[in-house]
Amino acid sequence: MKPSIPKGTRDFLPQEMARRNYIFGTIRDVFRLYGFQQIETPALENLSTLMGKYGEEGDKLLFKVLNSGDWLSPLKEKLAQDTELTANGLNSTVSDKGLRYDLTVPFARFVVQNRDKIQFPFRRYQIQPVWRADRPQRGRYREFYQCDVDVVGTDSLLCELELIQIVREVYRRLGIRVVMKINNRKVLAGIAEVIGEPDKLIDITVAIDKLDKIGWDKVADELRERGLAESAIEKLSGLQEQKSRESLRQFLQGSEIGQKGVDELEEVFRLYESQGGEDNDEFALEQDLTLARGLNYYTGAIFEVKARDVEMGSITGGGRYDNLTGIFGLQGVSGVGISFGADRIYDVLNQLDLYPEMTTEQTQVLFAHFGEQERGYALAWAQALRVVGINTEVYPEVCKIKKQMNYADQKQIPFVAIVGGDEMQTGTVTLKDMHTGEQQRLTKEELLNSLKK
Amino acid sequence: MKPSIPKGTRDFLPQEMARRNYIFGTIRDVFRLYGFQQIETPALENLSTLMGKYGEEGDKLLFKVLNSGDWLSPLKEKLAQDTELTANGLNSTVSDKGLRYDLTVPFARFVVQNRDKIQFPFRRYQIQPVWRADRPQRGRYREFYQCDVDVVGTDSLLCELELIQIVREVYRRLGIRVVMKINNRKVLAGIAEVIGEPDKLIDITVAIDKLDKIGWDKVADELRERGLAESAIEKLSGLQEQKSRESLRQFLQGSEIGQKGVDELEEVFRLYESQGGEDNDEFALEQDLTLARGLNYYTGAIFEVKARDVEMGSITGGGRYDNLTGIFGLQGVSGVGISFGADRIYDVLNQLDLYPEMTTEQTQVLFAHFGEQERGYALAWAQALRVVGINTEVYPEVCKIKKQMNYADQKQIPFVAIVGGDEMQTGTVTLKDMHTGEQQRLTKEELLNSLKK
Repeated sequence: MKPSIPKGTRDFLPQEMARRNYIFGTIRDVFRLYGFQQIETPALENLSTLMGKYGEEGDKLLFKVLNSGDWLSPLKEKLAQDTELTANGLNSTVSDKGLRYDLTVPFARFVVQNRDKIQFPFRRYQIQPVWRADRPQRGRYREFYQCDVDVVGTDSLLCELELIQIVREVYRRLGIRVVMKINNRKVLAGIAEVIGEPDKLIDITVAIDKLDKIGWDKVADELRERGLAESAIEKLSGLQEQKSRESLRQFLQGSEIGQKGVDELEEVFRLYESQGGEDNDEFALEQDLTLARGLNYYTGAIFEVKARDVEMGSITGGGRYDNLTGIFGLQGVSGVGISFGADRIYDVLNQLDLYPEMTTEQTQVLFAHFGEQERGYALAWAQALRVVGINTEVYPEVCKIKKQMNYADQKQIPFVAIVGGDEMQTGTVTLKDMHTGEQQRLTKEELLNSLKK
Repeated sequence: MKPSIPKGTRDFLPQEMARRNYIFGTIRDVFRLYGFQQIETPALENLSTLMGKYGEEGDKLLFKVLNSGDWLSPLKEKLAQDTELTANGLNSTVSDKGLRYDLTVPFARFVVQNRDKIQFPFRRYQIQPVWRADRPQRGRYREFYQCDVDVVGTDSLLCELELIQIVREVYRRLGIRVVMKINNRKVLAGIAEVIGEPDKLIDITVAIDKLDKIGWDKVADELRERGLAESAIEKLSGLQEQKSRESLRQFLQGSEIGQKGVDELEEVFRLYESQGGEDNDEFALEQDLTLARGLNYYTGAIFEVKARDVEMGSITGGGRYDNLTGIFGLQGVSGVGISFGADRIYDVLNQLDLYPEMTTEQTQVLFAHFGEQERGYALAWAQALRVVGINTEVYPEVCKIKKQMNYADQKQIPFVAIVGGDEMQTGTVTLKDMHTGEQQRLTKEELLNSLKK
């Protein structure tokens, strides 16, 4: 039997883990600086929590867990009543739990369920895997991590500012040059209103979202297919020219919600600029009216972040939602949040070769030895190094020194401390720098000093 | 709709997360000191990897994931052929993936699948959740974390020593006084041999494992039920007296494997004592012949750790397995490992009230303000604190100062920096120590100095 793992899932080897931990750690440190606290929710949620929250397509992509025990009898009963039932219609008969699809819906459920135990405005971050039964392809997995940060319980636009600052700081630390795009769902609603198609807001945003990828002509075709009037499409085409917020305000004359959207955009930019926000080579904040994002629950700001130096989709995205917890019975809790895509950030850092040397997770010194006595001697030295926090191994077997050096080499351990009879007699070790090949005889104190740095 | 989560699962609130992170961080730091590197495997494994590895009972406790798409047609086909089939017999028809049940079997699968990418002896640690469809009860969950550390690819008993040192160091750092019990599976095999029941090894170990809990008489009853001869049971009862390794060696005379087991035990104690291992109030290593542990794959050392000051089952356990990867086609890879039970450690620390003050995850300063201008002023100060690594919040809304102080109080934020008109005019803030109630007016430099410590 040749072992394998389900398609769309991955094993992470030590080097990959060190890189992932570097990304998660960087993101987490910045979240904490802004006073966000971590929570975790279970991987398993009741299907009643998850179903209907991600559209019909999303329901299909949920991984459903087979009920324990006798799931067959209820199924047979259902089938006896109606032989036409399909797998889709019978999912809930054999399964009442599923794997979480994102961190947002479980977070909304968490807030409602724990509302008496948390303080509002509630600032939380969450770094956990999610599962989607998507068709796996390059860069798209069935099991992957999300890093979400949200504030709920306030509609203050200061939260939007903080998210912008967090994005800027995370990517500054990672060394990735980014553009952060911002739009406002109320502006999009205003546009639908002034072109005379207020009921087609979703159709318009879904189509506009593709403008970058497929161009205006194809977007116009799609809008026609979706039943927009020719006059509306023509008015909409004029929007491509509206670059400044002032001209946008003009375009949206007569739409109250549209004006509100422009107000919000202006306030976010004002806050950003008042806090030293200034576009430069590393970071830019740009208004982008074509930014809509697929999800339906956004009601205010919409964010998306792209890397400047790599061809890739968005690496961070989010927005404001006024009523996410409403689906679980708690009304009037406005929130705003963003999600960092760890897997894409991983790919960006790999492509740009931006990883720093990662030493904290790596063994610093391997003790190699010429025999059992020497190994015993090495054991005591190793403990002395560990006491001062140096990651240390003693080669476990008594074997040829070449094999031990080879192990250090393949594992990229930077220093090998060699112990033979001479070293034992003189109370020393021979330290080999695996990078330069240099060797020197050191006492314990000298060794500690040379490694501590 | 009142939201809930599946029974046996949990939400973790910020304070609980901080405590869990403290446990995981402590364990991880010690693992790294000994040169162990982290890996992760997917939550979803093929059922073919998991089934048959945990016994019949374990197979039932695996969470199985319903196949995507049309799982119904193959099921109907099977049922048409044989109407007697039960849910149990049809699991594999509707499901080919499951959630991992422990970290050991996925690790064995990982080693075989990635053997060309890793260096042997391979030292890995892994901290991830596992899932079991067990009946939930106090302290037993359906979704919980395991923290495993293993070396595979060597039978050197130095690895056993290292695991002992790791256990001692982890619990020293956590402040939990423990007893670590050690036995050897070869000794148990030897016992079965010398009492004349070599084929009943599993029955004997399963029964002996309960000696602590139910006492000798009930163990003897169970052994009778399991078909052991009366003479064997009587010989076995004498074993309770064999306290020293020398008398154990006597008892095992004539059993080659038994003698080998005693040799191994002796060598581990010799190594332990040679490295300053000395039982004391905090840590003791004790040989315990009644230690068997349920699992069938151990072949050498068996470990179990209990807290001295709390009535609770084992908080860490493990052992040596000579052929774990054999089930996946890779023979001759001996390994040894232990698993720390994070949930039980969490409960022990709570009961003994041993958590240190956890400040790194907590907001250190909240800026409270009397108006919009003051908020803008606070924003700039907050950035200055974050630059030097101080976790800082600015209350997002303009509202009554009382509400803001209340928020800080409930969130247990230790310092509040208050900004009013006076402070703005004089370029200061009023810092309130929420613990003592003291207030003082500080310049930015004074504030930074007072918080940095």
